[in-house]
Amino acid sequence: MTSPSPGRLIGVGTGPGDPELLTVKAVRALENADVVAHFAKRGNNSNARRIVADLLPPDVAELALLYPVTTEIDKSEAAYRCAIDGFYEQAAASVAERLDAGQTVAVLSEGDPLFYGSYMHLHVRLAGRYRTDIIPGVTAMSGAWSQTGLPISQGDDVLTVLPGTMAEAELARRLSDTDAAVIMKVGRNLPKIRRALENTGRLGDAFYVERATMENGHAIRLADKDDDQAPYFSIVLIPGWRGRA
Amino acid sequence: MTSPSPGRLIGVGTGPGDPELLTVKAVRALENADVVAHFAKRGNNSNARRIVADLLPPDVAELALLYPVTTEIDKSEAAYRCAIDGFYEQAAASVAERLDAGQTVAVLSEGDPLFYGSYMHLHVRLAGRYRTDIIPGVTAMSGAWSQTGLPISQGDDVLTVLPGTMAEAELARRLSDTDAAVIMKVGRNLPKIRRALENTGRLGDAFYVERATMENGHAIRLADKDDDQAPYFSIVLIPGWRGRA
Ligand SMILES: C[S@@+](CC[C@H](N)C(=O)[O-])C[C@H]1O[C@@H](n2cnc3c(N)ncnc32)[C@H](O)[C@@H]1O
Ligand SMILES: C[S@@+](CC[C@H](N)C(=O)[O-])C[C@H]1O[C@@H](n2cnc3c(N)ncnc32)[C@H](O)[C@@H]1O
Repeated sequence: MTSPSPGRLIGVGTGPGDPELLTVKAVRALENADVVAHFAKRGNNSNARRIVADLLPPDVAELALLYPVTTEIDKSEAAYRCAIDGFYEQAAASVAERLDAGQTVAVLSEGDPLFYGSYMHLHVRLAGRYRTDIIPGVTAMSGAWSQTGLPISQGDDVLTVLPGTMAEAELARRLSDTDAAVIMKVGRNLPKIRRALENTGRLGDAFYVERATMENGHAIRLADKDDDQAPYFSIVLIPGWRGRA
Repeated sequence: MTSPSPGRLIGVGTGPGDPELLTVKAVRALENADVVAHFAKRGNNSNARRIVADLLPPDVAELALLYPVTTEIDKSEAAYRCAIDGFYEQAAASVAERLDAGQTVAVLSEGDPLFYGSYMHLHVRLAGRYRTDIIPGVTAMSGAWSQTGLPISQGDDVLTVLPGTMAEAELARRLSDTDAAVIMKVGRNLPKIRRALENTGRLGDAFYVERATMENGHAIRLADKDDDQAPYFSIVLIPGWRGRA
């Protein structure tokens, strides 16, 4: 990673929600950044930005990277891919502009930057050209199992991380072939996730965790949750290590 | 988690190695603990203890939980299970003694406490009886992929975490059925891991990371590593997201 410019890119993991779960290194990076960049949907505040709100120096420059409005376009369509790719290109270009000017740009990323995070779309476009550092963060899943007090995996356990966006049959197949599992991106996929767990006999082991480590965060056995409402910040955990001592 | 005593148990994730990767919450918990407990092998310093060495108050009480010497006993034997179970019972009892005296006991755990960590053996024995909190930490795998700058998983990727202790055929089967993988507990299992990757055509994608975020930490493509020496602190990463942008 040789750098033709004095600019520096930092991917900063902000952890799962509680600002106290930022690392010491992340706090320092925010204090020293020239620019703090964050992804957000138009009209919404960035989730990661909200986590660090009280940690940003009052006069720091901010760069909001606003996703294009794609709600009208089916995600499987080429038009969607094209709009999103164009957006990442443009986002990378606006970050590069700051880097070319010699600035240090901290890009906020919920949880850990390289684990299902948007930051990596900038990383693959910029890391070859600029000095780049990644500050890992506590993932949402660690926040969720810690808040719930659930030992997730031990010894020879296999742990599988599954996006809730997967097809139901595939989800079920994988749930029946792992000791422990984490299902991310729950939201509107919850009815499907529930069916896949039920059909593999694992519903009784599953916990639903909402807004882990945030205000109003809570956890419940999925079998006891009597609706299928789930916000963006929700995750399902199936511990592998069931009270073995 | 009703508490019959004013004592408080805290599982503290110390992150992968760099002391700056402790969370703000973990640093504070160490500053305020009455007792700092850590697991170690007899004659060795605790790894987690080493990470936090400069963060402990000079006069804090320490409780070393020393594993019994079991090198002579085969791990599959009942005698091994018995020695280890007895050890965890005794470790829990000595922590309980401090909790009964009303003390706050912080138990150090490398990485994240509930992710393949020893802390959970205390947790399952004590959390029902004492006020208990878990402070999640940055996992070793997050430290490893961040230091290496490898986006591990994105979008619909499935990520599988595999203990290197698994049988070779099982390891190979699972490696050929996942987008991304992390292999923990590498050490003496490296020759077997290498064969499983080779036989599934995934050796070319694999990275070997040693002592991630620690001094002398480094990463190399596993195919380029020309010996099979691997210390305790080593991990293998197979990114799911290969430079897709
Ligand atoms: C795009 S992924 C980002 C993951 C993040 N980079 C990490 O390291 O965990 C977003 C998903 O993470 C999960 N998530 C993030 N924060 C959460 C929280 N505080 N509680 C529950 N789930 C959360 C949800 O499943 C959400 O759909
Ligand atoms: C008993 S597990 C503990 C995992 C830990 N609780 C976590 O959250 O990552 C120990 C294994 O973690 C991995 N590990 C821990 N620290 C590491 C580091 N700094 N670099 C590479 N691997 C590490 C190694 O594979 C080691 O065998």
